[in-house]
Amino acid sequence: MSRSSDAARHYARDNANRFVGELDELLRIPSVSTDPAHADDIRRTADWLAGHLRELGAENVAVMPTAGYPVVYGEWMGAGPDKRTVLVYGHYDVVPAALEDGWDTPPFEPVVKDGKIYARGATDDKGQLFIHVKALDSFLKTGDGPPVNLKFILEGEEEVASPNLRPFIEANLDLLRADVCVISDSSMPTIERPAITHSLRGMTYVEVHVEGPHDDLHSGFYGGAVHNPALALVEILAKLHNPDHSIAVPGFYDDVVPLTDAERAEIAKTAMSDGELKTATGAPAPWGEADFTLRERVSARPTLEINGLLSGWTGPGAKTIIPARAMAKVSCRLVGDQDPHRIYEQIERYVASLAPPTVRVRVELINTGEPALIDFNLPEMQAAARAYERGWGATPVFTRGGGSIPIVADIYNLMQMPVVMMGYGLDTDGLHGTNEHFSLEMFQRGIETAIVFLDELAQLPR
Amino acid sequence: MSRSSDAARHYARDNANRFVGELDELLRIPSVSTDPAHADDIRRTADWLAGHLRELGAENVAVMPTAGYPVVYGEWMGAGPDKRTVLVYGHYDVVPAALEDGWDTPPFEPVVKDGKIYARGATDDKGQLFIHVKALDSFLKTGDGPPVNLKFILEGEEEVASPNLRPFIEANLDLLRADVCVISDSSMPTIERPAITHSLRGMTYVEVHVEGPHDDLHSGFYGGAVHNPALALVEILAKLHNPDHSIAVPGFYDDVVPLTDAERAEIAKTAMSDGELKTATGAPAPWGEADFTLRERVSARPTLEINGLLSGWTGPGAKTIIPARAMAKVSCRLVGDQDPHRIYEQIERYVASLAPPTVRVRVELINTGEPALIDFNLPEMQAAARAYERGWGATPVFTRGGGSIPIVADIYNLMQMPVVMMGYGLDTDGLHGTNEHFSLEMFQRGIETAIVFLDELAQLPR
Repeated sequence: MSRSSDAARHYARDNANRFVGELDELLRIPSVSTDPAHADDIRRTADWLAGHLRELGAENVAVMPTAGYPVVYGEWMGAGPDKRTVLVYGHYDVVPAALEDGWDTPPFEPVVKDGKIYARGATDDKGQLFIHVKALDSFLKTGDGPPVNLKFILEGEEEVASPNLRPFIEANLDLLRADVCVISDSSMPTIERPAITHSLRGMTYVEVHVEGPHDDLHSGFYGGAVHNPALALVEILAKLHNPDHSIAVPGFYDDVVPLTDAERAEIAKTAMSDGELKTATGAPAPWGEADFTLRERVSARPTLEINGLLSGWTGPGAKTIIPARAMAKVSCRLVGDQDPHRIYEQIERYVASLAPPTVRVRVELINTGEPALIDFNLPEMQAAARAYERGWGATPVFTRGGGSIPIVADIYNLMQMPVVMMGYGLDTDGLHGTNEHFSLEMFQRGIETAIVFLDELAQLPR
Repeated sequence: MSRSSDAARHYARDNANRFVGELDELLRIPSVSTDPAHADDIRRTADWLAGHLRELGAENVAVMPTAGYPVVYGEWMGAGPDKRTVLVYGHYDVVPAALEDGWDTPPFEPVVKDGKIYARGATDDKGQLFIHVKALDSFLKTGDGPPVNLKFILEGEEEVASPNLRPFIEANLDLLRADVCVISDSSMPTIERPAITHSLRGMTYVEVHVEGPHDDLHSGFYGGAVHNPALALVEILAKLHNPDHSIAVPGFYDDVVPLTDAERAEIAKTAMSDGELKTATGAPAPWGEADFTLRERVSARPTLEINGLLSGWTGPGAKTIIPARAMAKVSCRLVGDQDPHRIYEQIERYVASLAPPTVRVRVELINTGEPALIDFNLPEMQAAARAYERGWGATPVFTRGGGSIPIVADIYNLMQMPVVMMGYGLDTDGLHGTNEHFSLEMFQRGIETAIVFLDELAQLPR
């Protein structure tokens, strides 16, 4: 337990308001990576982060180009070559948000209300990545800097499945070399139950397109004689699940590693009741595979969801057409050892087998991400657990995350180092939904935990 | 055969270019009745028509208010009280259209190409209603006027199922009193095979709404544990048809009057081959009830179509949400003696029986229209057949229209007079689709046929 980490923690507490003000600035830039219209906003966000890192004392800061949106790199190597180096990964891009979606306040005009900051990206992931930036800031303002070296890699394409990050890492293995990677892009059920995520689900995201007539047809002229593409689409989509809610795609479960009793017991520590699910989501009742608990379903089991549907007339009132085409966005959350590309092939083959000759059907791959599973007995994982005890004030559980950070598997495999996922959000933060927010108390406790984690890492034998 | 009708026909031929220019003006106003944003355009169109009728010599012209969009009324009673009176019905509203839907030219900037005028409303129904306006114009410019009296009732809500026309007629029975009603809002298979429509399908149009969570959820957090509303919707929609393509809603066929052999023989005169269907629509293969011919399916059989689907993320790329809600527009074409409200109740009951407890489902009625069937042995129907022989130059067949003009049943029932549907469009005109157009030759031959029809009616014994 070093004095430098105590001083940094005090500094972080005393400067909480300034830190929130800086986060507010970062949240104002609508860095939506899924929509090309926001390309300039993405670049402005990268520039803002690079400028901020430079200002607080990071070195070698650069907005590094990729085939897509840039990576922001920065480092502080002042602890010296005999000390561990920590690589901090975060992402500064966000998913779309608009007031019309049902937000109470404009999603890119942050508002603090009841101790929470409301904005798109507040918890996913701008607020969480900023925790590590402020940990470094606090060390540098109060002494000689952290007891370990730090490198930041902040990307702008996580929400589109990081298509260019893997090539970026491969091209910059020396620059990025480190002993451990820390990522804060996940969450805990309540503030007193912090969690270290040791598993993430992968992803196969596709679009299913059905086409029939050349143009929309008048349903009075051709209704009854041509296969309505919207009907053909729903007939296909309705066959993707079995009556027991399992997924009907042949071979889908082939590579799923069965849960052991010990793993199920660990998952049971963060059990979610029917009531908790209903309160958190507003859904009238739970749904899913009866053989698995709710927590297992959302973290350790693969899923297949319809993310979007579009066909024909969707404006007000009536338009009596047979739509020329219909489209569904469909994505699977995958678990070890499922291969995203193999899953795509299985879906494509199954949909083709369901497609009638009365329409044209194709399945287009949008993106993929590998699932990841990290051993929680590694010393760096245990150091993180101690950091929560000291910095957060509660003992963490090791959990499986239901979401996907495709890059975790890549970092783990490419860079041969442990990835510690210390998520500082809450499950109820509304990420990817309306009124996304981040608790300011958790922001503060996150910064202190991140400070202590660096201290704990410095004390591990090399 | 009167000299006055010959002179009117010559005048119409000599002034074809002026008539097309006037139609062009009418087509430029985007009188989209399904979208409240176009309310002003609807009123501008009504004013334009009223002004035009006044200018050419119609009397008592008025833009008459309703609870919705106005009715344009105008008359010419110069033939005298001992002559028949013809009520011309038409509609000046159109369905939506946008260049982005795949039009070659902007839908409200008419273009003449290869003898056709391209614009939304060209054939449905601005071009066709204008035929009767120009028939009156031609008589008035060349003599004392038509040999019968004329009344025009031009409405602006046909494409939203005429919610206010029935009350308007009930409130104005004296004003509208006539001996026969003529409507040109239908079409023929080829220019040499004119058709008089003696039957129209009715309509029940609903929206099916499925709601689950309060907000869109992150599929990584809740995927697998809540019922995805888009999935629940497609599961319901996929059960609306039986595997043999008949409609699965219990009781749906109860009131369908079975086709007689004689009726099937009449329908067979306008048989549609698989090849013709494929060429006209671009659909890869026919679809529907195997026990009925293609022409029977599209005109004499009831149908159920999905007109639109909307849920979740439909923009570019990936957004990994469980949508909070999903919606489908669903409409049925009905035949005698199906009751649109009874059909709505049957759909509502059936969907409720399919709805699982894991989501909230409701079926909302958007609009209805009664089916209609007119006896083609009536003298006015036979006069129309002779008008085609003289004015168009071909013998018409009596056909069943697959579309819906809800007001036909109302006029037939409320005003106790025959309704003669003389459609001057082609089945391939693209109405309700992209690149809607109207043949200028058919516009011209339509005006001449309309002129001769007035002549034929004048010669019928009273």
